[in-house]
Amino acid sequence: MIRVVENTIKPYYLAIITAKQATFDFMNYSKAFLEAAQQLVDAGRFIDNKGWVPATSGNFSARLPDGTIAITVSGKHKGQLVIDDIMLIDADANSLDGKKPSAETVLHTSLYKRFPAIYSVLHPHSPSATLISRLYASEVVLEEYELLKALSGIDTHESRVVIPVFANDQNIPRLAEQVEQYLDKHEICHAYIIAGHGLYTWGSSVQETLRHLEALDFLFECELRLHGVKK
Amino acid sequence: MIRVVENTIKPYYLAIITAKQATFDFMNYSKAFLEAAQQLVDAGRFIDNKGWVPATSGNFSARLPDGTIAITVSGKHKGQLVIDDIMLIDADANSLDGKKPSAETVLHTSLYKRFPAIYSVLHPHSPSATLISRLYASEVVLEEYELLKALSGIDTHESRVVIPVFANDQNIPRLAEQVEQYLDKHEICHAYIIAGHGLYTWGSSVQETLRHLEALDFLFECELRLHGVKK
Amino acid sequence: MIRVVENTIKPYYLAIITAKQATFDFMNYSKAFLEAAQQLVDAGRFIDNKGWVPATSGNFSARLPDGTIAITVSGKHKGQLVIDDIMLIDADANSLDGKKPSAETVLHTSLYKRFPAIYSVLHPHSPSATLISRLYASEVVLEEYELLKALSGIDTHESRVVIPVFANDQNIPRLAEQVEQYLDKHEICHAYIIAGHGLYTWGSSVQETLRHLEALDFLFECELRLHGVKK
Amino acid sequence: MIRVVENTIKPYYLAIITAKQATFDFMNYSKAFLEAAQQLVDAGRFIDNKGWVPATSGNFSARLPDGTIAITVSGKHKGQLVIDDIMLIDADANSLDGKKPSAETVLHTSLYKRFPAIYSVLHPHSPSATLISRLYASEVVLEEYELLKALSGIDTHESRVVIPVFANDQNIPRLAEQVEQYLDKHEICHAYIIAGHGLYTWGSSVQETLRHLEALDFLFECELRLHGVKK
Repeated sequence: MIRVVENTIKPYYLAIITAKQATFDFMNYSKAFLEAAQQLVDAGRFIDNKGWVPATSGNFSARLPDGTIAITVSGKHKGQLVIDDIMLIDADANSLDGKKPSAETVLHTSLYKRFPAIYSVLHPHSPSATLISRLYASEVVLEEYELLKALSGIDTHESRVVIPVFANDQNIPRLAEQVEQYLDKHEICHAYIIAGHGLYTWGSSVQETLRHLEALDFLFECELRLHGVKK
Repeated sequence: MIRVVENTIKPYYLAIITAKQATFDFMNYSKAFLEAAQQLVDAGRFIDNKGWVPATSGNFSARLPDGTIAITVSGKHKGQLVIDDIMLIDADANSLDGKKPSAETVLHTSLYKRFPAIYSVLHPHSPSATLISRLYASEVVLEEYELLKALSGIDTHESRVVIPVFANDQNIPRLAEQVEQYLDKHEICHAYIIAGHGLYTWGSSVQETLRHLEALDFLFECELRLHGVKK
Repeated sequence: MIRVVENTIKPYYLAIITAKQATFDFMNYSKAFLEAAQQLVDAGRFIDNKGWVPATSGNFSARLPDGTIAITVSGKHKGQLVIDDIMLIDADANSLDGKKPSAETVLHTSLYKRFPAIYSVLHPHSPSATLISRLYASEVVLEEYELLKALSGIDTHESRVVIPVFANDQNIPRLAEQVEQYLDKHEICHAYIIAGHGLYTWGSSVQETLRHLEALDFLFECELRLHGVKK
Repeated sequence: MIRVVENTIKPYYLAIITAKQATFDFMNYSKAFLEAAQQLVDAGRFIDNKGWVPATSGNFSARLPDGTIAITVSGKHKGQLVIDDIMLIDADANSLDGKKPSAETVLHTSLYKRFPAIYSVLHPHSPSATLISRLYASEVVLEEYELLKALSGIDTHESRVVIPVFANDQNIPRLAEQVEQYLDKHEICHAYIIAGHGLYTWGSSVQETLRHLEALDFLFECELRLHGVKK
């Protein structure tokens, strides 16, 4: 009886998390994987608190020192992740532990192949990225903001940062090809938007990628408020 | 004296909840009811944190395996529910435990009768549903959003999802009849809006219904921001 | 050393609260006062979490069974109240414990004199009330909202609720007189707005007054979003 | 194994904070420094909860009784500060403990030199200050708000408060000179805005400065909503 009373105070999802965690076999995974998985779980809580991963949207990954990649499995709420919801894939997006990756996994692996210095890719579905892609069909230009300096390699507000916008496509290899062609022609790029869908951004660590994410969302919201989100 | 100091730090409503919970007789209810009730209590906390059940608005239900229904009683704050605030009704909305159901209970039971596969109905009073019904008098059309895929049965952003809007009516059987007539003609429907009032949505579990709710609120807010909430 | 490490995790204001509370002499006050004071402290946390009492704005009160009134002292942050920040006054706003009441105390006492059935008055400084008084100079009319039913005595969305707006005035007795003259002519009134300042609302308990507050803020925000907050 | 399960529930950043804190040598610092540092750490949590220091933006300081200054080091997330992220400088912005101050430190020290009565300077990057500087190029005028009384020395809503806006400049001494010239001509000033960047405000304590910050952000948001944030 006492147990039920306690459950009333304890959040529902926390109970699920604790129960699921207890059955997860940590022994199959390396320490590097478990640490990366924990960072993705916690990044999910941070990002969900901001309202940027409604329902089961979004997916996150971190590259390990040996080149394999920890990535969220398909279909989970990103604010309620447990380590068991993170899987291991190789550089070509093949599952290494039998779990099923998200259809968008190839968008992560192609970024890791192109940029040897990046170790994390985060893809939320924020209102700001969804809405700004209705305002600007091909690119978002950010200028005269001090916060541009939060992006790796930018050291003055007098920079011009361009975030490309790609049309949404359920054919992910074709969407990945669109991204590849753009990146072939634009060496410096911090992030891209898929129209009506969300943002992809990356960095040298989960922490740096969260910094990029927080800065870009702030700047998109400023642009939306300045321009009144008219179609 | 120590007790009063501790109360200062402990939230007021938590104290009420704990006190009330202690007097509730769990023995009259099945394990299935108590589990469903706990899910509704926790869904209430989640939904209230989003600001979607101001004052004592909204009501929530879950169907049990035996066809009876756990549903919130009338007049409680949905962010401060305890299990004692959940009652048991039969498929025809009759009270099975002597508690008084909300006037809107029949809107829940008629959805359960129509859709055998659904096991939860959630009805919040979000700003987004209230406002969008001033923008669109008969239906809200959602297109070109990746997040449409959070709705059961939708697998591409190239879908056209229609959410009907019904005029508000204090005569609930008459309002239920309005809904019935619409659903007779529209086999696929994920939710409806009562103008100036709120959203009804449903799903195969409390968790799936929360996913529908989170996705629809996100999409309504996008539409409101894009179209400027003009009358 | 350990102590400092723990302080880093413990919120700053909580440390202040705990320290202050420890020196407060509970023995001078009745149980009824301490219970009412605790309700006002907790109402302050609830209201501050909504963003409705920035800086040290707002003031709250509750009438005790013997007709004396527990009310917040002047100059405190309403989200960080302790019981020592609540004082006792008589029905004419005279201090009964030597503490200094807010200049606006007479606005509370005159409401208690007029309405024998009310036992709480809450006055926050919400953005919604501040902004809506720039949109409507003399009254805010609320119609066709289901949430109107959260106001005591309203049982249909087909009601017309009027919230008067009074010009701000640093001369509080003169402002109170303005309110008195309006209430002499309008028997039913749930709340009023002081322009560029905030809302006063009341009810039969702290809990009912919080319900009025939550409903009115929701409805003001709807009106602001519908009408675009143009001057 | 248990340890990993517990980490899932414990926030990621909290784990980092605890680990870092454990290695920090408190013995090198005075009690006055540690108390001021703790206030800045906690102010950071408060300000980050409001969304006013995205990414690693912002910097905060407090003057000690001996005239030295506790100030945030460069490059940290202000919502995740630990005492080790606060450093000690002299009145001329020289490091006294070997840590590296932010480039903007001189904006703090010149305010302390000019105003002997102030003991704290807080500089967040709020959306409101960033956006309002696109609306008003040289000054923001605040009038007819009760909340103006939250600013030190203001006792009526019938005041006219002017917050100057300066162009952003990566040359901080040149920016500081701009500020100096303005303050030479305007004895009473509660805060200034750097365009596209953020707000500087100050007060007799960290607590008073937080009050100024909370009031100014509220008033800027009111102005933005009233005037529609048009360029």
